[in-house]
Amino acid sequence: MRKRSVTIKDVAAAAAVHASTVSRVLNPETRNMVSAEVAEKVMGVARQLGYLRNPLASGLRTRRSHTIGVLIPDLTNPVFPPIIRGIERALANHGYVAVLADSGNSTKNKQALTESLLARQIDGLILATAHRKDKLVDKCLDFGIPLVLVNRTVDKHHVPSVINDDELGIKLAFDHLVAKGHRRIAFVGGPQNTSTAHDRYRAFVKLVKQAGLKLDRALIANSSAFTEAAGQASMNRILASRPEPFTAVITANDLLALGCLDAFQEWGLRCPADVSLTGFNHMRFMDRFNPQLTTVQIPHDELGVRAALLLLEKINRRDTPPKTIRLEPRLVIGNSTRAPSRNQRWPSAKAPGSSRRSRAALGAR
Amino acid sequence: MRKRSVTIKDVAAAAAVHASTVSRVLNPETRNMVSAEVAEKVMGVARQLGYLRNPLASGLRTRRSHTIGVLIPDLTNPVFPPIIRGIERALANHGYVAVLADSGNSTKNKQALTESLLARQIDGLILATAHRKDKLVDKCLDFGIPLVLVNRTVDKHHVPSVINDDELGIKLAFDHLVAKGHRRIAFVGGPQNTSTAHDRYRAFVKLVKQAGLKLDRALIANSSAFTEAAGQASMNRILASRPEPFTAVITANDLLALGCLDAFQEWGLRCPADVSLTGFNHMRFMDRFNPQLTTVQIPHDELGVRAALLLLEKINRRDTPPKTIRLEPRLVIGNSTRAPSRNQRWPSAKAPGSSRRSRAALGAR
Repeated sequence: MRKRSVTIKDVAAAAAVHASTVSRVLNPETRNMVSAEVAEKVMGVARQLGYLRNPLASGLRTRRSHTIGVLIPDLTNPVFPPIIRGIERALANHGYVAVLADSGNSTKNKQALTESLLARQIDGLILATAHRKDKLVDKCLDFGIPLVLVNRTVDKHHVPSVINDDELGIKLAFDHLVAKGHRRIAFVGGPQNTSTAHDRYRAFVKLVKQAGLKLDRALIANSSAFTEAAGQASMNRILASRPEPFTAVITANDLLALGCLDAFQEWGLRCPADVSLTGFNHMRFMDRFNPQLTTVQIPHDELGVRAALLLLEKINRRDTPPKTIRLEPRLVIGNSTRAPSRNQRWPSAKAPGSSRRSRAALGAR
Repeated sequence: MRKRSVTIKDVAAAAAVHASTVSRVLNPETRNMVSAEVAEKVMGVARQLGYLRNPLASGLRTRRSHTIGVLIPDLTNPVFPPIIRGIERALANHGYVAVLADSGNSTKNKQALTESLLARQIDGLILATAHRKDKLVDKCLDFGIPLVLVNRTVDKHHVPSVINDDELGIKLAFDHLVAKGHRRIAFVGGPQNTSTAHDRYRAFVKLVKQAGLKLDRALIANSSAFTEAAGQASMNRILASRPEPFTAVITANDLLALGCLDAFQEWGLRCPADVSLTGFNHMRFMDRFNPQLTTVQIPHDELGVRAALLLLEKINRRDTPPKTIRLEPRLVIGNSTRAPSRNQRWPSAKAPGSSRRSRAALGAR
């Protein structure tokens, strides 16, 4: 009955829609992105023409490479290696290996690397790089490659994801600080085009309102990246605006928190004596730092394992409906948080041109 | 004149040698591994039969994937990500991308991952995983894929490598401690099947002798892996042997040094008050630790950049003679080293069953 020669373009032409629409309709995972009316029309035309989905994409393929591509946004961010370890272990248990690519937070690299991975006939793809609106994710869905997002997800539904419960994470940090007596709490967030940063920021705003505290916008700065430098810049921005003194800072990421510590040193603030500070991720070595950071521990290993298993499920049963698995974080209490001090030292003005080099001078005054 | 149908096996049969010998002879890089007599014979037979090397291996190929495979021994060891960043940047400047694989220190994984990479038509391979005797390296040379070793090398010559000057690194740490007045110095090394661990260990022994100090074997322990746990076990072994007190420890790696700090805590030793300590690598975040570790900084980025450039040179000119590039490290001085104390506290016996949980008890005595 079916002829192999009918292409997705033939179906698109006959149905008078774009080829990408056809591809979305024919993929059960993305069908909901198209109106029911159009979907029905496209499926009817496809049936009429005898279109058979690309075996590579439709699960009929039996020749597998047993290789999974994993795209990481920043290999030097210690949050990712333990997630990858979880992925690798779970894959190995099922006879698969992972091939990794590090985009260095660059969209251009992300595209090139993914194309390079796809050209190498991987059986599936795990993306740790997702932005909330992500053309690369759309492209992979169109391509029909089994796909799972880990740690970060997209705004759209219908993409299988294994993520952390970011709202709960911020609530754990917030409740801990409020219980210690903090009322004026600043927030240093991450890049709002990522789901992690966005959800953590929204959670903070919601919690402040729910707690009946004043939401002071001068105490909130979202950073351009999840890096120490960006975190330092954000805290500098907050302090440079000369806000009413605050006694604690919640950050959306451990690297941002380390950047805040650098800014504190520039301004002569001590942590936790003058300002308490919380991180997010509980990245490796965190308990060896000075001060030991109170931080939200995300289940790195389990994020990786679950992502791998979800992908294998998808590879073995293409019609598995997409689902989002949300894992629970917990708070790890270090010594970067304590009750607000009655003798808080607050900077009267920033030392001119202060920087790492001027830390000694600040310490001496 | 030449026929494409003659295979390496034909040449081997006609010359009465093993196929791998033929492949070694025909590769200018590995020719020296075979006796001159055999090499001449094999080349004569190959010429006679009109053997043409596999275009994939002989540099005649023009269709390139512009993808380089990079094999890493342990993604969670912070020394590797910055090396990889250097590789990625240099490759990107030449229109290449890197595909990474993490062997998790397992030989089995190394094999499987490399086969998976080779099957994916990479243009070349950078191995950060080399052991001093490494079958995988031999295999890659036989296969004729352009290959560069980074950070670690093999005992054999004729394999292009970009490494750190490990002897100089240990000398910098040793001279620093001797200048501070230390005379009884312990050494915690790494797995002796890696060139880095071997060269650092040998350098230590040589330096002790050269300095006219007593070489006390009870103060030396080589670890099974470059991990915190292995370093802790090594220092426990040294201390459990009840040696004459020492005042400083040189380690072959920062993670080993962190493990020593854990052992010190178990035994109630303070760093640097009772024992000074040096690391090796200057891995990321090291300056935020407590104490800040005095450590040998290896030029991570440059190791990566040079390895990438050496590989591209090899890809573009297959007859480039193999060379070893050795980069100079420098000492970064933290506060884990100071002059020996006259009031050194030395453990009389290890607290029974001491562990992380008993640290508080030890601290209290």
